[in-house]
Amino acid sequence: MPAQPLKITDLTLRDGHQSLFATRMRTDDILGIIGDMDQAGFHSMEVWGGATFDVPIRFLNEDPWDRLREMKKRATRTPLQMLLRGQNLVGYRNYADDVVTAFVEHAADCGVDIFRVFDAVNDERNFETALAAIKSRGKHAQLAISYSLTERTMGGPVYNLDYYIEKAKKFEAMGADSFCIKDMAGIIAPNDAYTLVKALKKALKIPVQFHTHYTSGMASMSMYKAVEAGADIVDTCLAPWALRTSHPAVEPFVAAFSGQPRDTGLNLHQLLKLGDYFESITPKYRDFQDTTRMSAIDTAVLEHQVPGGMISNLVSQLREAGALNRIDEVYEEIPRVRREMGFPPLVTPTSQIVGIQAVQNVLFGRYKVISAQVKDYFYGLYGRPPMPVDPEIQRLALKGYERGESPITVRPADVLKPELEAAKEATKGIARDIGDVLTYALYPQVGLRFLKWKYGLETPPADVKAKTLDDVKREDELIAKARAGKLAEKTAEKPAAPAPSPVSVPASGLRHFNVHLDGKVYCVGVEPTATAAPAVYAAPPAQRSAAAPPPATAVRHEPVEGPKAVEPPKPVVTPKPVESPVAEAEAKPAAAPEPCGEDVLAPMPGVVLRYEVKVGDKVKSGDTVVVLEAMKMAIDLPSPADGTVAAVKFGVGDRVSRDDVLAIIVP
Amino acid sequence: MPAQPLKITDLTLRDGHQSLFATRMRTDDILGIIGDMDQAGFHSMEVWGGATFDVPIRFLNEDPWDRLREMKKRATRTPLQMLLRGQNLVGYRNYADDVVTAFVEHAADCGVDIFRVFDAVNDERNFETALAAIKSRGKHAQLAISYSLTERTMGGPVYNLDYYIEKAKKFEAMGADSFCIKDMAGIIAPNDAYTLVKALKKALKIPVQFHTHYTSGMASMSMYKAVEAGADIVDTCLAPWALRTSHPAVEPFVAAFSGQPRDTGLNLHQLLKLGDYFESITPKYRDFQDTTRMSAIDTAVLEHQVPGGMISNLVSQLREAGALNRIDEVYEEIPRVRREMGFPPLVTPTSQIVGIQAVQNVLFGRYKVISAQVKDYFYGLYGRPPMPVDPEIQRLALKGYERGESPITVRPADVLKPELEAAKEATKGIARDIGDVLTYALYPQVGLRFLKWKYGLETPPADVKAKTLDDVKREDELIAKARAGKLAEKTAEKPAAPAPSPVSVPASGLRHFNVHLDGKVYCVGVEPTATAAPAVYAAPPAQRSAAAPPPATAVRHEPVEGPKAVEPPKPVVTPKPVESPVAEAEAKPAAAPEPCGEDVLAPMPGVVLRYEVKVGDKVKSGDTVVVLEAMKMAIDLPSPADGTVAAVKFGVGDRVSRDDVLAIIVP
Repeated sequence: MPAQPLKITDLTLRDGHQSLFATRMRTDDILGIIGDMDQAGFHSMEVWGGATFDVPIRFLNEDPWDRLREMKKRATRTPLQMLLRGQNLVGYRNYADDVVTAFVEHAADCGVDIFRVFDAVNDERNFETALAAIKSRGKHAQLAISYSLTERTMGGPVYNLDYYIEKAKKFEAMGADSFCIKDMAGIIAPNDAYTLVKALKKALKIPVQFHTHYTSGMASMSMYKAVEAGADIVDTCLAPWALRTSHPAVEPFVAAFSGQPRDTGLNLHQLLKLGDYFESITPKYRDFQDTTRMSAIDTAVLEHQVPGGMISNLVSQLREAGALNRIDEVYEEIPRVRREMGFPPLVTPTSQIVGIQAVQNVLFGRYKVISAQVKDYFYGLYGRPPMPVDPEIQRLALKGYERGESPITVRPADVLKPELEAAKEATKGIARDIGDVLTYALYPQVGLRFLKWKYGLETPPADVKAKTLDDVKREDELIAKARAGKLAEKTAEKPAAPAPSPVSVPASGLRHFNVHLDGKVYCVGVEPTATAAPAVYAAPPAQRSAAAPPPATAVRHEPVEGPKAVEPPKPVVTPKPVESPVAEAEAKPAAAPEPCGEDVLAPMPGVVLRYEVKVGDKVKSGDTVVVLEAMKMAIDLPSPADGTVAAVKFGVGDRVSRDDVLAIIVP
Repeated sequence: MPAQPLKITDLTLRDGHQSLFATRMRTDDILGIIGDMDQAGFHSMEVWGGATFDVPIRFLNEDPWDRLREMKKRATRTPLQMLLRGQNLVGYRNYADDVVTAFVEHAADCGVDIFRVFDAVNDERNFETALAAIKSRGKHAQLAISYSLTERTMGGPVYNLDYYIEKAKKFEAMGADSFCIKDMAGIIAPNDAYTLVKALKKALKIPVQFHTHYTSGMASMSMYKAVEAGADIVDTCLAPWALRTSHPAVEPFVAAFSGQPRDTGLNLHQLLKLGDYFESITPKYRDFQDTTRMSAIDTAVLEHQVPGGMISNLVSQLREAGALNRIDEVYEEIPRVRREMGFPPLVTPTSQIVGIQAVQNVLFGRYKVISAQVKDYFYGLYGRPPMPVDPEIQRLALKGYERGESPITVRPADVLKPELEAAKEATKGIARDIGDVLTYALYPQVGLRFLKWKYGLETPPADVKAKTLDDVKREDELIAKARAGKLAEKTAEKPAAPAPSPVSVPASGLRHFNVHLDGKVYCVGVEPTATAAPAVYAAPPAQRSAAAPPPATAVRHEPVEGPKAVEPPKPVVTPKPVESPVAEAEAKPAAAPEPCGEDVLAPMPGVVLRYEVKVGDKVKSGDTVVVLEAMKMAIDLPSPADGTVAAVKFGVGDRVSRDDVLAIIVP
């Protein structure tokens, strides 16, 4: 059989910007190029799914369904592909079957031709409902395996060649139209890529696609070897949005196989023109690019086989807890926790679940604090992991668990009640089609807020506006002037001699502070605004007891919305500062008008889901005061002390910043 | 025979920063890590040569010989390697044999263990003198071939497999201790890397080393295939300073071959620690990094097989000439010129020679203007190219050529007279050892200036000072403030109502202008300073006749000093602006006190070598007025008109910026 041309799936419009720019690419910018990309001869274009649902409704004020329909109008030749998180769809929890079916059918109707479906623990039962819906619409179902390791390379008792081949055969038998190796952490080594693809090509009749990330720096070598082994299709991005945590660039592959038996047939010149477009719009998104490191690859991934994003989360968790020096203990704890959990692949959300538990084990003692997600996991709500979990830890985790102490063995969605009717009910009078209903069904909080923006029932905040190239130009000019020494502090430079004492509070709510900055004194007025309580509390760093022991914050697997890996919850207890008569340089101004007590602080940015208490309620240390939705988790924030609720500072649905005071407890 | 461990040469301290940061790494930063790198187990470390001689004396006020000795003190285990440009040493022209011998011997004495020697046209006769000196000192001589293509991949009538194998055998027969494929443009395809290395391993007894750049994005694939084919040693950088125009990162290679027969044996953890160091010092050098493009690779290289740096030069040349729209004509002209020149590899300096001639051919007509370097080339001063040159063009180029109209066939250095005694003579009283003498012999202008700095005879300018991390921090704070809107223009914001008319000139030399910027009016005073003539001339863009026909600028191959590829010379004629009574927004202020005439402008930054005229001299259009040394070339700047020299604005040795007025010619 003569060699087939190598086929290319372009990921630029989905995983490309999801990897590099926090999924912030705007619909307008997509529509400006997708018609040209449609002519390039790609096997398919992945343009939807993953975080491209959540981010537009949360941050961009854009309707993902509209985007899909508009893309489909312009891409008439190349199949459009989406990434579907199995029963999680484009969210972060298992949805009920009726929602899954409706979602897949509507996505197919709006333009998705190829569904790439994966599951975080590779439990094929989590594919069943989606697969049936894809087939019912006559679309292409690609089932993907989450590539994972327990050793440096493929092998060992779990993720060995047999595991992958068995799974692949199972997927094929279920009805997969193609199979994908999905190496989301970029950890597959070239030699393993070759061995695995070679064996898959022998074992399967359906096409084999190869997907990896550039993160560790091995990606183009591994992809090259995958092609040598016979991979039918590989995933790439156009060069400007390739490499780093994204994917191999398409152009070097086209050149490398040019004139060879696997020649892609793609026109290099045409690809360069497409790349120029992405180069030209990149400045709009630069604020979302991680430029903290010079290295274009994340070599630490090679040492620990831990996904890059997970490492940064661990680091920021530990830093917040003032325990960054314990990172090596956490690296040692991760494989232990993972073994106890039955060696799940480290991918969203299992990477967070394992990582957070490992940090808590190091900080507070092994399983002294068990997050609600870990309980759900041991109950079976995520599915069946590759190996049995540790029965001791499972018993411990499920002790007093609200759903019951005996884990389920059925398909997780079998225990979920239908959700679609309730969603229709809740959006009556707002939702105009099934797309709107699904937006709500997937993301009740941010979905509803988006629908209100969409239909003019609420004014979207200014920060959902797109950054333009003109904005970029103005910013660049400003920075250039600053660097050239042409700018000076805006504030009048006269010392604020007669400034009011730091604790005086005018009736209007406007208060003044002498702020010492770089040796200069500024008179700063602080006035509450309507939207959020502005009171700022700050204690000298030494007084913070951030890593205080477990008046345990519980993390619960509930609404669970949000696009990006985040820091974990942790108990944050901030005593009021002892007010000194003279405001010290660097210390934030102390506020006076609030009752003296213990603050319940937001440990990370998020949205208030609900308060479990009201002003005047008595609470005990550890009682849940407020539930915060922060990215992928519902977080119970506990009272730091016994006492009475003296203040509740936000309302349900309010966005809060890290360290915002959510409530105050007085003794 | 069992497979040998893959050996690694680390390039971070030479080609790494030369590729990414214009060779600006400081000796202090090198000495801070080289001892640790010495423990890593590299086969060798390339730490010297290339531009690391020129840049320190030119920009850093650091002695390269001292650096070498200090490195050697700290690296006691790992052989130190240098890159030697054959008879060009670490400069940009062929030096006389006595200089070559003295240079190699002194480099060996100061610490170089391995000399990697290459030649721009792969003329092995240009190795002879250096090779003898290396052998005489008992050091390792690695002879490198400049990898080049005329087709998309290896093959065709010139750079085919036979060419490389023949050359390699010749190098081995000459006494090479090892052979290196030096792919300086990053254009070798994986398949060709495999074929070539496989054939070399069969043909040679000496070790084969593989060197490529990441530029086109194929590098790690090609290097992987080179290893599969049996390459003994490969060249990498530590990850933070790898990729982009640099080299493959070492860490993914170590991981990729870990546990395989070619396992490098290097310790990944140790490498990550070394990488952390480079990450930590990177901010000091960020001003030299090219951040104009998002893409981490330069895909245009794949289309034209033209080195990345050469493309940017062509683009900037054409932009300056207002002829960027003719880039495609230049791309078509390059292969023609290259064929006429006997298909030289496109590497410094041949890439500049070919590129400049191609641009001139497009702008002024084929060979209407012939640069002096092209004449030298056709005379034979660079050596024997891979194929015969076009005899017609050769005759044309050598017509009236100062050295004679018959080209030489001998080794180029055979026609060069000894130079060392003259250098000793010229540095008498300043130079304290042979190193100092060689610094002068290689770079008479900047070398002498450096020696004066070194021995306190002249105060080095402020800009040779190192940027510190504190500087970076201050700059970052300033930029953060600017972005946060906390800074404003320094100038007083009152409208400059009673400002003097734009053309009034106070006796002091201070003149005031109303400058309209973003709709605001600033009163700006302009005063000449001592170091450089500040007069600013500007014409509305339409009046510029930058691409005016050939009052030919001649480029001559003479002192020829400088580290970086540059724009070519071109005739620049700037008529005086018609002065309008009201200064227009955007237009630069017109100056009054100078005579009205035609300016001779600097087409690029450089140093004045000499004026060929003095004030009062009569000149004809096209007569050389001033000779500028700009990077790799001596450039004759012609008079734009017949007339009299009315002003000479700089002195010999003065540094000038682009568009500085060097002289004024009045009718």
